[in-house]
Amino acid sequence: MRQFVVTGHDAPTTPDFSLDDLPSGAGRLDVLCRCVNSAFFLSHAIREDVRAYLVLADSFTIEFDGREVRRLNPDERSTAARIRGALEQREEAIGHIPAETSPGVSIRRVGFEQTLRDVAEESTIVELHEAGTPVVDVDPPEDPTFVLSDHRDFTDEEAALLDELSDQRVRLGPHAMHADHAITVAHNYLDTAGYTAY
Amino acid sequence: MRQFVVTGHDAPTTPDFSLDDLPSGAGRLDVLCRCVNSAFFLSHAIREDVRAYLVLADSFTIEFDGREVRRLNPDERSTAARIRGALEQREEAIGHIPAETSPGVSIRRVGFEQTLRDVAEESTIVELHEAGTPVVDVDPPEDPTFVLSDHRDFTDEEAALLDELSDQRVRLGPHAMHADHAITVAHNYLDTAGYTAY
Repeated sequence: MRQFVVTGHDAPTTPDFSLDDLPSGAGRLDVLCRCVNSAFFLSHAIREDVRAYLVLADSFTIEFDGREVRRLNPDERSTAARIRGALEQREEAIGHIPAETSPGVSIRRVGFEQTLRDVAEESTIVELHEAGTPVVDVDPPEDPTFVLSDHRDFTDEEAALLDELSDQRVRLGPHAMHADHAITVAHNYLDTAGYTAY
Repeated sequence: MRQFVVTGHDAPTTPDFSLDDLPSGAGRLDVLCRCVNSAFFLSHAIREDVRAYLVLADSFTIEFDGREVRRLNPDERSTAARIRGALEQREEAIGHIPAETSPGVSIRRVGFEQTLRDVAEESTIVELHEAGTPVVDVDPPEDPTFVLSDHRDFTDEEAALLDELSDQRVRLGPHAMHADHAITVAHNYLDTAGYTAY
């Protein structure tokens, strides 16, 4: 199982945003939508062994489960509509219990810390860091969780938590890249068993 | 210089499409927009040493030049608007002479073959193929051009031309992937000098 946690610092927590203005009015929701795309899409197939968690302004987390998700399309707008649909049902997420809002998509009233602590229990947390070990020199973990940030850096609190919970600290290349691109590179690293199996 | 040619088989050749329906009404223009994103964006920077060519239904080719392009945003919708703006000025592209339609973006009345023959004169054409050499076993070329297709396979004519003009045939991993993901992986391969320099 491969997991990706993406924290969207300015992401909406209510459904009253326009699909016509994802970058600005919807707080860079376009970034999170592209992360969903990168996490799940192969050519003419969905990666079933993947879960992606979008943390919205540290208040709600929307989970996409590749085994269950249906009718996911690769474009930003339709994924944003799926997120908006989840936010329309946010009152059904009570306590820390997730509410499924469409097949394979659920919303939970938790922020970054709880989401990360939960996935850390059952996976290897991989931190992407410019001072990390070149990923090519690290054996791919069996059940990795990559933790990513949107267009902003991690906050100091997020970075401290990540330092506490991370099992590996790697870098994917010499340049800092967008979160969705990092997911694509991480998949390629895992698909090729660390650039050894094509 | 890194170049990417992406052929959009169903892409529009006139500007009368809605930005609200890129996947369907605009012939999967969302795919081409994501390719522009992958070709140019680093975290908080644009890759200047890149050119991307979007071939629209084998009739027009829109070029994005990383040295000249301004105000490019990563979301699909704004890139689609830039493409629509280029198509609004398509009558200014006379013969095979490109017309610049916004800074760093130009339109030319040529299809896949002419675009590919032109870039082949000054670069190493890299074909992505499931039977190709694992890319990790190939030294990165100095001036590569990667040639990609949208959601459809290359036509027989396109594949034959690519076979004729390609200098290398590689595969990026064990799974066929979306064109924009392939661009991201290609950049990572080149950025790391074939997964050796981080």
